[in-house]
Amino acid sequence: MNSDNIPDIIIGRLPIYLRALQRMAEKGMKTSSQELGEHVGISAAQIRKDISQFGEFGKQGTGYSIGFLIDKLREILKIHHLWEVAIVGAGDIGHALARYQGFTNRGFRVAMIFDTDASKVGEKIGEFTIEDASKMVERIRAAKIKMAMVTVPASTAQEVTDKLVQAGVKAILNYAPTSINVPNNVRVQYIDPATHLQRMTYYLE
Amino acid sequence: MNSDNIPDIIIGRLPIYLRALQRMAEKGMKTSSQELGEHVGISAAQIRKDISQFGEFGKQGTGYSIGFLIDKLREILKIHHLWEVAIVGAGDIGHALARYQGFTNRGFRVAMIFDTDASKVGEKIGEFTIEDASKMVERIRAAKIKMAMVTVPASTAQEVTDKLVQAGVKAILNYAPTSINVPNNVRVQYIDPATHLQRMTYYLE
Repeated sequence: MNSDNIPDIIIGRLPIYLRALQRMAEKGMKTSSQELGEHVGISAAQIRKDISQFGEFGKQGTGYSIGFLIDKLREILKIHHLWEVAIVGAGDIGHALARYQGFTNRGFRVAMIFDTDASKVGEKIGEFTIEDASKMVERIRAAKIKMAMVTVPASTAQEVTDKLVQAGVKAILNYAPTSINVPNNVRVQYIDPATHLQRMTYYLE
Repeated sequence: MNSDNIPDIIIGRLPIYLRALQRMAEKGMKTSSQELGEHVGISAAQIRKDISQFGEFGKQGTGYSIGFLIDKLREILKIHHLWEVAIVGAGDIGHALARYQGFTNRGFRVAMIFDTDASKVGEKIGEFTIEDASKMVERIRAAKIKMAMVTVPASTAQEVTDKLVQAGVKAILNYAPTSINVPNNVRVQYIDPATHLQRMTYYLE
């Protein structure tokens, strides 16, 4: 089980399986890979093949126990412990993420939120106090935070990204509608509503 | 070219290719499928295979012209014309989406925004006026809007979804941290930051 050996595209499917499994568990369902495949729109054979990359999990044809699979996927994805995440940008999206209920049981906890706007610094969002972005590098480095969500305008996204990399952040979720450049040892994911909408227009009349 | 014949998983990759191509075009790049593959982390062979489902686009081995591919993908995804989208929920995310600059040239235009909160109705967000959600079904139906973004709390997401379906909406982008049920002829996509974060933790130390 070496990260160099498993294709990125397979890793990318695991959180989708995990989310489907957690939803099925909430509904009180047991599962087989057949049912899971129906939920996520990927074939049972593909799911079985993906999961087998990480070791044997169940007898072929008998399906998998939901609880066991959830635990295993959380372990593979390293979210069996909590990751602290910094938010940069206390605009609409920053506020929404600071209050977001969807991180619970998913492996993440918002730890701090920054903004450059002096009029926002010191303001409260729920349990958080907006901090001065000029202290960001030092604060993130001291707290050893490795993940950040960038919710600044497109025009400042690269500058913020460079500072996060300098602070030791290794994974960035970018909400700004622009691409950002990072060194090879840093990961980036994009929240891009247009891409999701485009996945659906194909099917519309 | 029949939507019944092309697997959903392939359709899902096309917006990713399109986004990568648009970014490459912005940087003034020409492309081959090799370069595109490097940008999106999917093999050139896979991309060629996906695109060939929709007809012959270029000579094998010579790569594709970016402009031609962008046009072709926009046509396949039916975003060569603008789709109007309704936003339901004028909270932080609703505000952010109403002001979002990332829909430009991607095929979408926000047309209206609704909220149930009487104190918000009539308030302006940029060019939009927040409308009373009690008029939503009638307004969306009259405007023949087929797409909506749901940014209400998890507790009311299903109720809002049912009304959107009743209004004739066929594609929903759900920001609420909960799953929603729709009839078979309606599509749903989820904006789920935890899933994106989980795609990255695997690679962290």
